[in-house]
Amino acid sequence: MSGAASYEPTERTTPTRARERAAYGHETVHAILDAGYVCHLGYIRDGSPVVLPTLYGRVGDRLYLHGSTGSRPLRMAGATPDPGLAVCVTVTHVDGLVLARSAFHHSLNYRSVVVHGTAYEVTDPQEKTSALDALVDHVVPGRAADSRPGNAKELAATSVIRLDLRDVSAKIRTGGPNDDPEDLALPYWSGVLPVAPVYGTPIPSDDLAPGIPEPAYLAAR
Amino acid sequence: MSGAASYEPTERTTPTRARERAAYGHETVHAILDAGYVCHLGYIRDGSPVVLPTLYGRVGDRLYLHGSTGSRPLRMAGATPDPGLAVCVTVTHVDGLVLARSAFHHSLNYRSVVVHGTAYEVTDPQEKTSALDALVDHVVPGRAADSRPGNAKELAATSVIRLDLRDVSAKIRTGGPNDDPEDLALPYWSGVLPVAPVYGTPIPSDDLAPGIPEPAYLAAR
Repeated sequence: MSGAASYEPTERTTPTRARERAAYGHETVHAILDAGYVCHLGYIRDGSPVVLPTLYGRVGDRLYLHGSTGSRPLRMAGATPDPGLAVCVTVTHVDGLVLARSAFHHSLNYRSVVVHGTAYEVTDPQEKTSALDALVDHVVPGRAADSRPGNAKELAATSVIRLDLRDVSAKIRTGGPNDDPEDLALPYWSGVLPVAPVYGTPIPSDDLAPGIPEPAYLAAR
Repeated sequence: MSGAASYEPTERTTPTRARERAAYGHETVHAILDAGYVCHLGYIRDGSPVVLPTLYGRVGDRLYLHGSTGSRPLRMAGATPDPGLAVCVTVTHVDGLVLARSAFHHSLNYRSVVVHGTAYEVTDPQEKTSALDALVDHVVPGRAADSRPGNAKELAATSVIRLDLRDVSAKIRTGGPNDDPEDLALPYWSGVLPVAPVYGTPIPSDDLAPGIPEPAYLAAR
């Protein structure tokens, strides 16, 4: 990654163990974020941590999440006079199950990104529209342009929050098990079982108007 | 689910919206937990939320997570004189991408479980061993019995924390898009794109001892 732009490691993004798995390059971080659409949003509610799965989109160095204007964390992010919600947003892809001879060395191959920061409500209408397009396009690339855009009522009912990618890092594990040398001759199978999300045959709505073909971007998924 | 045992809804597990998606039955909650092995663990560090992907196992009404004894949240869970770490553990399975005619009604089909509570370090050696077996068996059912069990040194280097399933709920969305009636005739494809994790061909370690067959439990994954 030498020469490429990187996020600055911070106290929070510098691991105390397995440092070789940490990565900060823009390209690496963005690729992991762009490969997904569900993040786990962490925030504090009444002094306790809460973790919720939710959709996200990325535009440049900004992550966008959305929800109903009635949703608790989104209300907190836009609260006046003291807006901003301390969050941690984590995106994880599991790539393989790592089976070692020893139970101890079992592991996963994965790619994850953890973003720390303060999320703020997006109030600029143009930024909000772009963010919502990015959210839809994360789920199915190309879909935002092939659906009815939000109308004024829908936009008013939807809150979008923004989280800058600054205090951010990726973590990646690849390869086989790291068994201890003295375990290599044990009579247990060892290796990696690859895993990936696979998309099935699209199921059209029962009430789909006749003559509407299956869009090409679905096949690309 | 009538007649079956259920977790008691709490203030934290009663959603303010989409209440029809919430479920509390033991069977439903356990099935979602048992279908996975990666959770997102939320806790508070220096006043800010942290969300980390990590492995878990379930034994009855207890969830077990593990890590190095040097890991920050695990140290906090076992701290003296004031042990216990406030956590939120979330498990999410995505089952389908829901494409509505309107951008606004795009959604996901998913099953998730959110567990709130206080995690404590497991100090009983027998409970610790069972917990670690459960963790390995969540990744690949049947694997714990077919690998070298942890030795004293490995067990000492591993910390296990327990979280009781009490303040817990499931959330499930199934079915097609919920488009507004006036959008049904719009010229956009709508429906569901199913998705599921699919396991590939096992990749044996380069240094696998000769004559060790691929275990049958791998094919079951």
